[in-house]
Amino acid sequence: MLEPLLPMLLKKTIVLASESPRRVEILKKVGLKFKAVPSKFEENLDKAAFKHPYEYAKATAKGKALDVFKSYSENTENCDEIPDVIIAADTVVTLDDTIYGKPEDDKDAFEMLTRFSGRTQTVYTGVCIIYNQADNCSTDNKGADQINTFHDATDVTFSTMTSDVIQGYIDTGEPMGKAGGYGIQGIGGSLVESIHGDYYNVMGFPLNHFCRHLQEYLQNQTIA
Amino acid sequence: MLEPLLPMLLKKTIVLASESPRRVEILKKVGLKFKAVPSKFEENLDKAAFKHPYEYAKATAKGKALDVFKSYSENTENCDEIPDVIIAADTVVTLDDTIYGKPEDDKDAFEMLTRFSGRTQTVYTGVCIIYNQADNCSTDNKGADQINTFHDATDVTFSTMTSDVIQGYIDTGEPMGKAGGYGIQGIGGSLVESIHGDYYNVMGFPLNHFCRHLQEYLQNQTIA
Repeated sequence: MLEPLLPMLLKKTIVLASESPRRVEILKKVGLKFKAVPSKFEENLDKAAFKHPYEYAKATAKGKALDVFKSYSENTENCDEIPDVIIAADTVVTLDDTIYGKPEDDKDAFEMLTRFSGRTQTVYTGVCIIYNQADNCSTDNKGADQINTFHDATDVTFSTMTSDVIQGYIDTGEPMGKAGGYGIQGIGGSLVESIHGDYYNVMGFPLNHFCRHLQEYLQNQTIA
Repeated sequence: MLEPLLPMLLKKTIVLASESPRRVEILKKVGLKFKAVPSKFEENLDKAAFKHPYEYAKATAKGKALDVFKSYSENTENCDEIPDVIIAADTVVTLDDTIYGKPEDDKDAFEMLTRFSGRTQTVYTGVCIIYNQADNCSTDNKGADQINTFHDATDVTFSTMTSDVIQGYIDTGEPMGKAGGYGIQGIGGSLVESIHGDYYNVMGFPLNHFCRHLQEYLQNQTIA
């Protein structure tokens, strides 16, 4: 969707505040050139403090983006050295009002997947985009006034899974490091009967929503 | 989902009657070992002769599977040389009672994508699996009596796309060779707002349905 905008986008410095191989893969897919920089933001916000899981995901994404923004702005007096666009995302899985992050160990993954068996869960990805506004740039304000957040939701329905199937899947090693203990883009895809929403949102980044947001933003104003 | 069955499946000779890189990729994902053999079946069945698009997709898949089965059985007197399992699939895209296959050229792709803009289409993949029953094997009957077909349907909703966006996508070269003129697993994924059903079905092979079918089949009987 971004093809008509690529000539403009390729002139911008873009940073993905994440080293998640899945997010890197999704953003590369649409032809964006960017640098992946890990955020040091601790993902430990109080889940109970948020009315809705997507608010938690958006706040965590914002924390990641701001952390990377600060690491740039604190190390320079020159606005031009701050990336034009910083992108961050956070994905959570929810079922019965519980938010599931990455499993702690195989036992935890087994419990999560057992709960998901034959059920429909919702995956939320919160996204935060910081646009560095050179026009607004000063020592006091290095341009982080353009902070946009949004989220996307996708329902994921699992097949009914026996313990053997769940254990067999855990033994592949795939569940660790993934929200909800599965990777829809990997072997985990065979466990999923149906989804409703954006597939890439389940993988960790709502590609279509992101492209539409960028399109709208660029049509309304010129980024520095 | 197939992990508990893999020790049994790895002893079987499995042929995928297709050289589609996407189908090869999906089947490899779940750990199956198989050989990809192109079918010479001409995909020219009369679409109007079928009451429903999925009947057409299943008949084409059956044609592909039987073609590969015959190429094996005609070249041997020995049932053991015929693969234990032959898998074929065919994918079609439908909107307003029209079946869309692969675009003939860029102009055709442009027309298809213009029709899909802002609309929901349905993707059907028909699958045919031939199990070679050694118990039933004779010179007259080389085991093709176990022919199973099924299909899966996924709704795909596109964003509203301008001519620039459509032309920009066509210029990437991705639409050619793909049913409906797009690849959801590639740059085309950015055009899709939402899907309802199995993502892999849109890519060309209903992975979850296939695994459930195989699971059920193997639980009910022993394949040769």
